[in-house]
Amino acid sequence: MNLASDNVVGMSRPVLEALIAANGGGEPAYGTDSWTVRAERMLADVFEHEVSVFLVATGTAANALALAALSPPWGAVFCHQESHVMEDECGAPEMFSDGAKLIGVPGVGGKFTPADLEARMAGYVRGVVKSVQPSALSVSQVTEAGTLYSLDEIRALSALARSKGLGVHLDGARFANAMVALGCTAAEMTWKSGIDVVSFGATKNGALACEAVIFFDKARAENFQYRRKRSGHTLSKGRLLGAQMVGYLENGHWIDNARHANAAAARLSAGLAALPGVRLPWPTQANEIFVVVPEKTAAAFAAEGIRAAPWASDCLPEGFEIGADERFLRFVTSFATQASEIDAVLAVAAR
Amino acid sequence: MNLASDNVVGMSRPVLEALIAANGGGEPAYGTDSWTVRAERMLADVFEHEVSVFLVATGTAANALALAALSPPWGAVFCHQESHVMEDECGAPEMFSDGAKLIGVPGVGGKFTPADLEARMAGYVRGVVKSVQPSALSVSQVTEAGTLYSLDEIRALSALARSKGLGVHLDGARFANAMVALGCTAAEMTWKSGIDVVSFGATKNGALACEAVIFFDKARAENFQYRRKRSGHTLSKGRLLGAQMVGYLENGHWIDNARHANAAAARLSAGLAALPGVRLPWPTQANEIFVVVPEKTAAAFAAEGIRAAPWASDCLPEGFEIGADERFLRFVTSFATQASEIDAVLAVAAR
Amino acid sequence: MNLASDNVVGMSRPVLEALIAANGGGEPAYGTDSWTVRAERMLADVFEHEVSVFLVATGTAANALALAALSPPWGAVFCHQESHVMEDECGAPEMFSDGAKLIGVPGVGGKFTPADLEARMAGYVRGVVKSVQPSALSVSQVTEAGTLYSLDEIRALSALARSKGLGVHLDGARFANAMVALGCTAAEMTWKSGIDVVSFGATKNGALACEAVIFFDKARAENFQYRRKRSGHTLSKGRLLGAQMVGYLENGHWIDNARHANAAAARLSAGLAALPGVRLPWPTQANEIFVVVPEKTAAAFAAEGIRAAPWASDCLPEGFEIGADERFLRFVTSFATQASEIDAVLAVAAR
Amino acid sequence: MNLASDNVVGMSRPVLEALIAANGGGEPAYGTDSWTVRAERMLADVFEHEVSVFLVATGTAANALALAALSPPWGAVFCHQESHVMEDECGAPEMFSDGAKLIGVPGVGGKFTPADLEARMAGYVRGVVKSVQPSALSVSQVTEAGTLYSLDEIRALSALARSKGLGVHLDGARFANAMVALGCTAAEMTWKSGIDVVSFGATKNGALACEAVIFFDKARAENFQYRRKRSGHTLSKGRLLGAQMVGYLENGHWIDNARHANAAAARLSAGLAALPGVRLPWPTQANEIFVVVPEKTAAAFAAEGIRAAPWASDCLPEGFEIGADERFLRFVTSFATQASEIDAVLAVAAR
Repeated sequence: MNLASDNVVGMSRPVLEALIAANGGGEPAYGTDSWTVRAERMLADVFEHEVSVFLVATGTAANALALAALSPPWGAVFCHQESHVMEDECGAPEMFSDGAKLIGVPGVGGKFTPADLEARMAGYVRGVVKSVQPSALSVSQVTEAGTLYSLDEIRALSALARSKGLGVHLDGARFANAMVALGCTAAEMTWKSGIDVVSFGATKNGALACEAVIFFDKARAENFQYRRKRSGHTLSKGRLLGAQMVGYLENGHWIDNARHANAAAARLSAGLAALPGVRLPWPTQANEIFVVVPEKTAAAFAAEGIRAAPWASDCLPEGFEIGADERFLRFVTSFATQASEIDAVLAVAAR
Repeated sequence: MNLASDNVVGMSRPVLEALIAANGGGEPAYGTDSWTVRAERMLADVFEHEVSVFLVATGTAANALALAALSPPWGAVFCHQESHVMEDECGAPEMFSDGAKLIGVPGVGGKFTPADLEARMAGYVRGVVKSVQPSALSVSQVTEAGTLYSLDEIRALSALARSKGLGVHLDGARFANAMVALGCTAAEMTWKSGIDVVSFGATKNGALACEAVIFFDKARAENFQYRRKRSGHTLSKGRLLGAQMVGYLENGHWIDNARHANAAAARLSAGLAALPGVRLPWPTQANEIFVVVPEKTAAAFAAEGIRAAPWASDCLPEGFEIGADERFLRFVTSFATQASEIDAVLAVAAR
Repeated sequence: MNLASDNVVGMSRPVLEALIAANGGGEPAYGTDSWTVRAERMLADVFEHEVSVFLVATGTAANALALAALSPPWGAVFCHQESHVMEDECGAPEMFSDGAKLIGVPGVGGKFTPADLEARMAGYVRGVVKSVQPSALSVSQVTEAGTLYSLDEIRALSALARSKGLGVHLDGARFANAMVALGCTAAEMTWKSGIDVVSFGATKNGALACEAVIFFDKARAENFQYRRKRSGHTLSKGRLLGAQMVGYLENGHWIDNARHANAAAARLSAGLAALPGVRLPWPTQANEIFVVVPEKTAAAFAAEGIRAAPWASDCLPEGFEIGADERFLRFVTSFATQASEIDAVLAVAAR
Repeated sequence: MNLASDNVVGMSRPVLEALIAANGGGEPAYGTDSWTVRAERMLADVFEHEVSVFLVATGTAANALALAALSPPWGAVFCHQESHVMEDECGAPEMFSDGAKLIGVPGVGGKFTPADLEARMAGYVRGVVKSVQPSALSVSQVTEAGTLYSLDEIRALSALARSKGLGVHLDGARFANAMVALGCTAAEMTWKSGIDVVSFGATKNGALACEAVIFFDKARAENFQYRRKRSGHTLSKGRLLGAQMVGYLENGHWIDNARHANAAAARLSAGLAALPGVRLPWPTQANEIFVVVPEKTAAAFAAEGIRAAPWASDCLPEGFEIGADERFLRFVTSFATQASEIDAVLAVAAR
């Protein structure tokens, strides 16, 4: 049983069915197929706004392309110091932006405040030639620590960023899980809260390889098609992406999937937290559970074939220490997680 | 009826079935899934050699990554002046190689000779600091003009390149079509002929989005995993690629597909060539037909909904002129082309 | 005696004296010193226009920075196929532009016509995503073959380029030699003829290491200071550049230098052309003489310690062949060339 | 009186004289002139080792080129979080390395320990594909805070770095000031202490624009000439750099200059520290004084035309706070600083 990530399962049934439906017949190439066009229209509806949509196959591509659209090579991109774009993409944002600098903002539990951001921005003064120039803010929602920003928190960050002339990116690799947890709309979590560009992830929540980069202002997307093409992310048989996105969005399937995953996470989190010797550094807010367990519990998981991801963080709450006989783990649930899996994890942990 | 390209159709039945089979159950992420591992083993068998395999979703990614592995930023990559890497990837090789220079070699019908190559290389002297440094040769097989190099011709080019210290890349976007047409093995067309790295295309011949970069020398592939990751081409749910490749290769399916496409092209080519006023600038050797037709024939195609790609080339045979009342077209057949489609094109052309 | 290039001599006396004068006393750093400010004002006077000026130490930096300001990474820069930016800068334009593509335009004697340019541009269609996007034209004046464009010719090229949305760069490594030869003003050869950005060279004509990138529209220069800084071309003790430029421009010194060099070249060219067996592929128009001599004459030069640069070109006039017993040489005169040197070359050649 | 930096003065007399001496006569271009060759030999003597030397005009170029030689685009370069390469070069290391990631290591007073480095390196695991790969360590000596590493400290850092497979760079923008302060040899401070590549600065200590990148292992320098050329840092009239370096090194001039500057700094530092209300966050060890003064003292400096650089740091000693009525300043002395200037500063401060 692999709960180390939400990318260890395939696609959900409706996504697969859309892909099968899309397979027959001729379609024009390079993202002009009818499925992609339909997906674009559906995303405009989801976001209640005109959008420029670019489908790609990976979250790394979505993020790196989006940040490159917001920052010149001499730009500074502010992001959490443990965010995915900072630590987990082997320098993709630097490659796609031709060398922009990602500036890590510290903050407990994967989040930072306007004050944290402002303090970090102080070192990068516009017009001072020796300094990379403040260009973009990237906010992760769900964060890399599985936590959430409230809409007010997003608005406060984006307002500060915009007041300083920065474009604002939202890394929504787990967009649906966040939206469902907040009980808000896609519009509220993005353009209504000051977001300029979204990496809208579908892969972790039901698709196989499908993410959308979404702009709310066409001007910002002006040259994006060339960026995508020259980075090799324009699929010739674009229906692969278009069909996945259609299947993902249709009939609220993506929302159902996220609700399922979040509920499973909530149950697992609550069950674990109730056990003696088990501690959570921060609450479970979407579909990821970060938990400190006794070493012997971790060993029992391993012995029973229960896979969680070993974790580490420099952003633990003050005073929260991990003992030498403890292990820090991440569990992630998905649309495919079964109740029996949660039961099994809790049973092993309770022993 | 769209015969403008071989990327206007979906995936073939066996590829789709492999994808469906691969969808269930847990698999580790980022290209370590069982389907990718199996695809790698199958490719080793196909090429009768130990290989380092990297699956990606697009031909542009495969080519650009492969060339970046062969050329430093200050390198020169020699390729046909109308090749796909030169003209059709929006500068992807330049992006991935951080600025290497593609040097176009002229030659009729998409091909060049060792003498052509040597003449072009004369301007780039090793050790002369003002000059980009000769680093790689990229050979397209099938060429951008639909023609083929014989094995002897490939060997002569790669021998010259290797004698000058260049690595040799084969752009095999239509690898199977070429191999079947030559009646040779994959090994003969590659490492036995001096090829170091192959872009092994599956997308145009039955897959939906799957290409393999294949190295025959592990040392050349040493850092390739980082190149792929930071360019956003490492899929989290790698089974998408692994399953396609397994379905493509299994039971010789890829060869059947290529034979089908080539046969359809041969019939269409012969049928067109027999018509008065229709001329071929060079023979049809794989699954692409380049043909000059009277303007009224082109208009008839359009009127009947038959789509071919309007073409242009600076590499026509000497003395071969295209009149003002003529049109230069490319037809491409695929695994999915039906006999009735060929009949229909020929019927319209014969009118 | 070294006549292989105009970069084999030091700086002229007035430039050296300006440098000595500038050496004492405190000056603010990074290009805000009084000498640089004065140089900027003098250049505005020279060009009879408001200018944004950026001094750098090398022509390669000037050209590469200027082209990067005109072309995005997915851009196409049109230039002569044997131009300095194309062939002699080890890929600097590609590095500074993060991968833009230089498209070589053919043309006899280092020049091309609007028709040549238009033919080459035909392959790069705006909005076609697979194609790099037409972004800039780079015109060399003096050309790499030592020839000149007339003002009318420059205007015709820039008019075509501008009508297609391209920015226009003038590589003026030998700006003064060209201007003096044409008998025009700096304004006439640049913004009055449709030039947007100039690499204004001083190094070859009297300075030691000083070139200016000059924009006539401040908007185009908006981020140039960051480009210069991050490429390491912002000198901390900027007076080195400012003082050279002041010494170079003051009292028309730069014009005197160019007149001297051009006159020496004219005399050498006429003298050589009058000799039996000596041929010029194109006329000498500035300070470079391209000449084909019998092998034994070349040997005599070498024996007498007269250094010229061995040359090669794919752009010789039609029918102009170089025999196996001939040698193609380039002589370059400078502000420092002495009459006795010309005499000596002619004497050896006449033997 | 400008004591804000050591780059506000011109070149010292012997450097100027060397430049004048070098100006006459012909010299081959692009760094093959006799002055550069002589400088290279002198540097080999200074370092008591075979060296590969590359002269450039700026420290930014030297650092960025050196780091690019040590790190691939997917590499991690560890350096102090407030180092010059990290904060003051507008992203030049990122540009030259095509996107490598600089990882800031914290540490009081511009320095960090092996333990600090090891803690930071823990997040970047070799072979983990999502992570940039540990490639280089950059040590500043003098540090950005004006402090010094002892030879033992350098050796401990480089030993750790080398044990992890990293190349080690020393940013010696103030190399001479450090060497003189430590009372060691150039060899002891570099290759004998595990340094692979040095940015050997001359500009701040007597030259006008001259730095050397020095490799002790030719293999590491293999392609450096192409890196330098394509970044526009190969001067055509290379004597400008060669002559400066010869004048700088000859007769121990560089050492005299550094002794002078350090002595002036020591006197200024001691004088300031003795005043009530004046505090130094860390000792003055070379030619830079970092000092916290009452606001009214700072105002008095300004009123008297004494320029110091306003400073800020996140690396103050624990418990060292700067009050709202205090100002943090940097004074820098140079070879040209006069005793009367120190007197004047102290007199104003004492009022």
